[in-house]
Amino acid sequence: MSERKLPRVAVTMGDPAGVGPELCLRLLAEPTVSDVCVPVVFGDSAILKRVAARCGLPEPRVMVSHADWPEARVGMLDPATLEIPTEGMDEVQAGVVSAVTGRAGYRYVTEAIRAAMAGEVDAICTAPLNKEALRDAGVPFPGHTEILAAQTGAPRVCMMLTSDEITCAFVTTHVGYHEVPGLLTEERILNTVELAGAAMGRLRGRRPKLIACALNPHAGEGGLFGNREEEEIIIPALERARRSGFDIEGPLPPDTAFLPWRRKAADCFICMYHDQGHIPLKALAFDKAINVTLGLPIVRTSVDHGTACDIAWQGKANPSSLYEAVNLAAKLAG
Amino acid sequence: MSERKLPRVAVTMGDPAGVGPELCLRLLAEPTVSDVCVPVVFGDSAILKRVAARCGLPEPRVMVSHADWPEARVGMLDPATLEIPTEGMDEVQAGVVSAVTGRAGYRYVTEAIRAAMAGEVDAICTAPLNKEALRDAGVPFPGHTEILAAQTGAPRVCMMLTSDEITCAFVTTHVGYHEVPGLLTEERILNTVELAGAAMGRLRGRRPKLIACALNPHAGEGGLFGNREEEEIIIPALERARRSGFDIEGPLPPDTAFLPWRRKAADCFICMYHDQGHIPLKALAFDKAINVTLGLPIVRTSVDHGTACDIAWQGKANPSSLYEAVNLAAKLAG
Repeated sequence: MSERKLPRVAVTMGDPAGVGPELCLRLLAEPTVSDVCVPVVFGDSAILKRVAARCGLPEPRVMVSHADWPEARVGMLDPATLEIPTEGMDEVQAGVVSAVTGRAGYRYVTEAIRAAMAGEVDAICTAPLNKEALRDAGVPFPGHTEILAAQTGAPRVCMMLTSDEITCAFVTTHVGYHEVPGLLTEERILNTVELAGAAMGRLRGRRPKLIACALNPHAGEGGLFGNREEEEIIIPALERARRSGFDIEGPLPPDTAFLPWRRKAADCFICMYHDQGHIPLKALAFDKAINVTLGLPIVRTSVDHGTACDIAWQGKANPSSLYEAVNLAAKLAG
Repeated sequence: MSERKLPRVAVTMGDPAGVGPELCLRLLAEPTVSDVCVPVVFGDSAILKRVAARCGLPEPRVMVSHADWPEARVGMLDPATLEIPTEGMDEVQAGVVSAVTGRAGYRYVTEAIRAAMAGEVDAICTAPLNKEALRDAGVPFPGHTEILAAQTGAPRVCMMLTSDEITCAFVTTHVGYHEVPGLLTEERILNTVELAGAAMGRLRGRRPKLIACALNPHAGEGGLFGNREEEEIIIPALERARRSGFDIEGPLPPDTAFLPWRRKAADCFICMYHDQGHIPLKALAFDKAINVTLGLPIVRTSVDHGTACDIAWQGKANPSSLYEAVNLAAKLAG
């Protein structure tokens, strides 16, 4: 905590070729953010300056060199940028992701995790990485969630997306469509319910109401569709969750789970696969959802959009998701 | 056509234990429907009278016995009920589906298809059946679409759901989650594009704009997730569709396909599986979507909800989907 008792949030710059740099520039200049936390961008000052010039945005004011951190942070009260040097940054171009940009983006995250584990920051909020760039860089993880799980040693993690309109937690995430049934286990579903239930209880200050989706259309319609995943895996998992005290309804047919009156009643939907929850989330709360990784020993939030390379370095990217994500990180850390 | 040149629409009563009867009673008494067509409910008058008494709705006025049909229809200008007797109706109770109710609901549909094929009615609009009741009755089809395909001998059919907010056509429908990848073929996708493109062209009066969804999250992110269904099946199918003159975008990541600005631009989404399209449809247009079966030699529309046994015979069910479905049937027949 700073002397103003505001939490310090490490904000990773994301893939340098994507929209991350311009979003970080806007964040550093945003007064509403400074009211709730001290953001520290973990990134590259040369890239930030190039993007600032291109987009007509203010340059970052306070720069901290890697050698001065973490001592520098002690008296640090203002939004700052922590310089994390990586190779090849001179050649990076707007919207062109590569092994170079993948490696840099990965480095910012690794440094932020280290700083959070060491107590040098109170929370992490991440701008988007690019999965193909990570792969090209030889990073052995498909995305943030997996990096965080491995580097913090968390035994179980869960991805949750939250917005005013709808909140979803995921039993499976970035895997092919066909892999989902094989990954559904009672244990995995129960983990998701427990982590999401605990997080929503903390955020709401009361026992949250959860709704679990089925896997098959019409929830399998009594075993008519599918391999009885509802009867054999999901229902037993939910019964165990109820015995542990969770208020959870379902499994509901995935299409009627998200009806307007159910959305109002539910604090969080437990979704069996990525698009089951992402489709209603993006249809209803595009640009406004925030990604929270549950189960980590540190607080981590993220924007709910990609690198958007088609509009990178043009100043067009909407920063509201990053503002919201930093706000939520501060709230969860506080 | 009647003497008023209005199309005659056969409205099947659906499963007698569900909300179908009360919706049909409301429809028969609804003046806005009589302005665009002459509805004829294919169902059971005793059930309709019992439900009318329970719900405080008006009894059906004009009854036509099965023996008098189709001769009776010649001079028929008013909403009517065609009596289709089936066994065991006395014992039917609100919300309790069974082999008896499944057999009755199936019989109404079979009669309506026969009447439409014989030109005795100009279109069919169906109230909901219950899939478990159909199975208990030994009906060898899981739902309406399959019954219609078999009994009209249609070589290829496609389910489309339409509303003011969003329209989706489906490459696969009522199958288990795990079966979908094995059912995706270039041919099936192309059929869906062709049937949906033709129908939307007719409804819009211009070349429609179509958007196809991917199967995998992030559209497979360049082959990173899934079995390359995008590269090997969906993309080649869409290229063939474009060569045939269709304006079709995609395959898009399923979660960003339905963003508000894309929904405004697209006349129809081509969805790879049931919940991919049903989730946004119900979240955005619950109670308002209409189901159209494309590819049949007859016009067929349907409500987009189930038998809702939990509220059956209580007069609570919202009839707006049935009104809209009958209106669209009249429009497509006219």
